[in-house]
Amino acid sequence: MVSKNQIKLITSLQQKKYRKQEQLFFAEGVKVVQELLNSNFELQDLFTTKQDFLTVSKNKVHAISEAELKKISALTTPNTCLAVFKIPKAKEMIEKGLIVALDDVRDPGNLGTIIRLCDWFGIETLFCTDESVDIYNPKVVQATMGSISRVNVVYGNLELFLSQTKLPVFGTFMDGKNIYQEKLPKEGVIIMGNEANGISPSVEKLVSERIAIPRFGNLQVTESLNVATATAIILSEFKRS
Amino acid sequence: MVSKNQIKLITSLQQKKYRKQEQLFFAEGVKVVQELLNSNFELQDLFTTKQDFLTVSKNKVHAISEAELKKISALTTPNTCLAVFKIPKAKEMIEKGLIVALDDVRDPGNLGTIIRLCDWFGIETLFCTDESVDIYNPKVVQATMGSISRVNVVYGNLELFLSQTKLPVFGTFMDGKNIYQEKLPKEGVIIMGNEANGISPSVEKLVSERIAIPRFGNLQVTESLNVATATAIILSEFKRS
Repeated sequence: MVSKNQIKLITSLQQKKYRKQEQLFFAEGVKVVQELLNSNFELQDLFTTKQDFLTVSKNKVHAISEAELKKISALTTPNTCLAVFKIPKAKEMIEKGLIVALDDVRDPGNLGTIIRLCDWFGIETLFCTDESVDIYNPKVVQATMGSISRVNVVYGNLELFLSQTKLPVFGTFMDGKNIYQEKLPKEGVIIMGNEANGISPSVEKLVSERIAIPRFGNLQVTESLNVATATAIILSEFKRS
Repeated sequence: MVSKNQIKLITSLQQKKYRKQEQLFFAEGVKVVQELLNSNFELQDLFTTKQDFLTVSKNKVHAISEAELKKISALTTPNTCLAVFKIPKAKEMIEKGLIVALDDVRDPGNLGTIIRLCDWFGIETLFCTDESVDIYNPKVVQATMGSISRVNVVYGNLELFLSQTKLPVFGTFMDGKNIYQEKLPKEGVIIMGNEANGISPSVEKLVSERIAIPRFGNLQVTESLNVATATAIILSEFKRS
């Protein structure tokens, strides 16, 4: 069963303020929870309608009813389990290989998809501005499908980082060089901009390599790609060579 | 103002059954509505809290309050306008160039993103199985950001189409050939599978070219890419050459 205090705590974790205060976050669904259990995340409590998590110490597992799960879930259609984990200490930034840096990406689904892409393409570090959506937002955790455990996500001041790094800094702009024709390096920072405004002017000043994904459709339409699909195309292009 | 009957009609259009019965759909937000007005879609009624659609004949424009907009909108935060359009007659399938075919893609956001990608990469025809989500679903219309007006979306029986086509048929599978090393043609059908189950066995039988997007991260993890980001990478790879 789940107590009133637990319900209050877990629902409060939908807000960044309380996640920060409690240093806890939660994940839902067998697949995502299992991935986090298999990784270094420290489990606080696991609530499940089916007691089949044998690898978890029994005192942390709480059998609950579907009605109880509904009370703590952030999903419209709750899965069979919800687990509360401790937020790990922020890791040190390792400046090597390819780093993806997000300049205020706000949509949880986009951040989750980008983390999944980083995992797929072996990007070890994802840098996010402090204004970007929080990775422990339940919608982000859900969209990562577990890959959140395999990508090191660092929050900080992007201008400060870019002004200190020795790596080349790539940014996508309409007037940039065709990525299909550029020789792309094995190391560098790839900046992806905000959904509505793209890369901010203060960050743009620190970009050393302006690149572009060519459009093949009607060239008179000034349409852009979604930030997650643009990231997919750019990472594929950096890695394929 | 908006009448009770209009509210009833518009909210009913959130369901496929009523869109089919009335042969109408709706779009929201200035950007999407303006794109559809600029294209061949026939406007039935436009409801707006700001009367600035000067290009639209006055008898089709209805000034409404924000409270009224909330009653007809499918969005949690309604934009300033909502327009009802007639569903155009299904166009003939043109078998040339690259065709993307979706084998039961169910998520409206994924279909919307894929339509936007088809528009970006100049794919003229998108084939969807009848079980795929309906393109006139309000969430799909929204996610296309207007590109729905530039891509010809055809629904039908995929097995029937594939068994008749003379084009090579590409499908993505774990054991497929590395797309980065294959010479990809200018013409062909590219099949993208369902979010949970991938390409169905009956469709797989009709695939002539098995391809794969290589994974660069931890190879022991059997994680997959989201269908929309996988489509982005594959279309980029077909078009870049």
